[in-house]
Amino acid sequence: MTKDSRPIRVVGMSGSLRAGSYNTAALKAAIALAPEGMTIETAEIGDLPLYNDDVRVAGYPPAVQRLRDQLSGADAILFVTPEYNYSISGVLKNAIDWASRPPSQPFDNKPVAIMGASGGILGTARAQYHLRQMLIFLNAFPLNKPEVMIGQASSKFDEEGRLTDEATAGFIRHLLEALRDWRDRLS
Amino acid sequence: MTKDSRPIRVVGMSGSLRAGSYNTAALKAAIALAPEGMTIETAEIGDLPLYNDDVRVAGYPPAVQRLRDQLSGADAILFVTPEYNYSISGVLKNAIDWASRPPSQPFDNKPVAIMGASGGILGTARAQYHLRQMLIFLNAFPLNKPEVMIGQASSKFDEEGRLTDEATAGFIRHLLEALRDWRDRLS
Amino acid sequence: MTKDSRPIRVVGMSGSLRAGSYNTAALKAAIALAPEGMTIETAEIGDLPLYNDDVRVAGYPPAVQRLRDQLSGADAILFVTPEYNYSISGVLKNAIDWASRPPSQPFDNKPVAIMGASGGILGTARAQYHLRQMLIFLNAFPLNKPEVMIGQASSKFDEEGRLTDEATAGFIRHLLEALRDWRDRLS
Amino acid sequence: MTKDSRPIRVVGMSGSLRAGSYNTAALKAAIALAPEGMTIETAEIGDLPLYNDDVRVAGYPPAVQRLRDQLSGADAILFVTPEYNYSISGVLKNAIDWASRPPSQPFDNKPVAIMGASGGILGTARAQYHLRQMLIFLNAFPLNKPEVMIGQASSKFDEEGRLTDEATAGFIRHLLEALRDWRDRLS
Repeated sequence: MTKDSRPIRVVGMSGSLRAGSYNTAALKAAIALAPEGMTIETAEIGDLPLYNDDVRVAGYPPAVQRLRDQLSGADAILFVTPEYNYSISGVLKNAIDWASRPPSQPFDNKPVAIMGASGGILGTARAQYHLRQMLIFLNAFPLNKPEVMIGQASSKFDEEGRLTDEATAGFIRHLLEALRDWRDRLS
Repeated sequence: MTKDSRPIRVVGMSGSLRAGSYNTAALKAAIALAPEGMTIETAEIGDLPLYNDDVRVAGYPPAVQRLRDQLSGADAILFVTPEYNYSISGVLKNAIDWASRPPSQPFDNKPVAIMGASGGILGTARAQYHLRQMLIFLNAFPLNKPEVMIGQASSKFDEEGRLTDEATAGFIRHLLEALRDWRDRLS
Repeated sequence: MTKDSRPIRVVGMSGSLRAGSYNTAALKAAIALAPEGMTIETAEIGDLPLYNDDVRVAGYPPAVQRLRDQLSGADAILFVTPEYNYSISGVLKNAIDWASRPPSQPFDNKPVAIMGASGGILGTARAQYHLRQMLIFLNAFPLNKPEVMIGQASSKFDEEGRLTDEATAGFIRHLLEALRDWRDRLS
Repeated sequence: MTKDSRPIRVVGMSGSLRAGSYNTAALKAAIALAPEGMTIETAEIGDLPLYNDDVRVAGYPPAVQRLRDQLSGADAILFVTPEYNYSISGVLKNAIDWASRPPSQPFDNKPVAIMGASGGILGTARAQYHLRQMLIFLNAFPLNKPEVMIGQASSKFDEEGRLTDEATAGFIRHLLEALRDWRDRLS
């Protein structure tokens, strides 16, 4: 809970659009695992157009404006990133590019937690360090620890996308608790 | 020219969609500056949908298939990347994500040249190193040198987007000659 | 000043050992520019042996122990890094490697400011992002902004190594004030 | 073998100085696994002083000159890097800093293979990408693939440092064969 007893409002974004995405599944798991006093809602980024600055100048499209408003109202951000080609997905980067433009910049000064899932053993490590470099520019404050990299994801979720691995559930819970504490510390 | 006297065919991609983009202008400059025996054509990436693996499995959309075919037929690739949020644009990453998927991977084993333009002093350095990390996975072979980072771009192009800075023109020419030689060396 | 009116004690490290180093000169400038309530002292890292874990297990050499004690007592750290071969210097990395080992880890939970000077135009940007990745592991908290990258250093210091560029002095002052505020915020 | 039937001479460097280092053990394994027509010799980097440009200007110390001569005579380089603090070791960086300075630059234009061992699961991934960024500046040509990251090293070497894991031996052999082919392609 925040100091005025309002729940901490976290907006989570999954960088993968496929229906069976392990990252979207991990975000759903996080929603269920959120500690008391924290709510996590999902930002939709699959219906954004490709970033075009001429479009921005003419006026943010409704889907972009909705995302920007949602992020602006958040107390903290949770990124759930796949790793495509050794970086974050273009889908997630496109959402960040739209959200980060004037007049307001909704990542500014926000506490951030990062996690990601992949089939391989590295569990999106490379993507996460790229994302962290972006957050320097955005003046966001990512948690250093824990770093949640869910490798070999196919063995940790069932066919309906439910997280079945207890250790991973513990890591996610730990991440969310650390985000809550980090948010308190920065306030 | 290739050894069989066919011109080297380079496909160039600009990561920015705005009409007055310095990166698109730099790509146009490169087309005009291409050395004898090299042709550069532009890949359109602004009409691609956002990457969705479910869509891929159902069949590549026509705009994606066109991009993939064009890249597959290229002898070399020229990336012209803006820097958004300390990385390459989501637009460019989205194109790479679509192009890199099975059954063929058109960046595999291809010589690559990189340049970028920005208003600031660093001239897309941060974006270029992210792109280079992606190229490891893609098994492409980027030139080490020259690194063409066009900083303070507004002073180097005129209002119609024509490159007016002679030093920058020399860097681009040098890059393209190095790409031709690198391609010969790798053949 | 800290809340109990003790001055904030910052330990600064220059990653270059040559007598006329611009980075060491920038650290000296920072010492002179420190805001009220902040003292900056210099850590000597030029007399450390090369890191060897067998030596560590046998007992920290005196020069290492001195560095570790000095860092442990600091309220905040100021890194002043050259860029050698697109990363931080081996000299600075060696100091970090020694300082970061058990039983205590003196960077843990510390606010950090980063600056660097180089002859080229990028002003140690590449080195600074590598350093920031190290700080994730070390659980330190680097300032996002300002990023102080002193390019074309030979025009900004005189022959005795005195900072003569007013804009650069302003950036350093701004960095130190931001470090003080960041330290207060994290406390 | 080179085209004139001389064996390819590879110089290998381990970035760890402790006697029981898994990286040094992996380098020893590579020496034993070298394909026909390739010899691998070890570069000693533990007796180098810390890099100081004033010392360089006065004249390379004997241990540095020996390293520089050895690298200059190599046909290819094999880096075996630990990961300390999410980057390569200061020890290895210091060796690179000394070796890379004028009048000659022995990494220039050389084919390079990279591997690394660590106790954790990521197997030096973060260090390897930092090293790859350095190699851009050095104008060396690292193999894209295979990327040999030996995680959980304590289960793959015996107490005498002998590689006991067959899969890892296969990866190293594959790396060395790829280095030989890459060297031929670049010649």
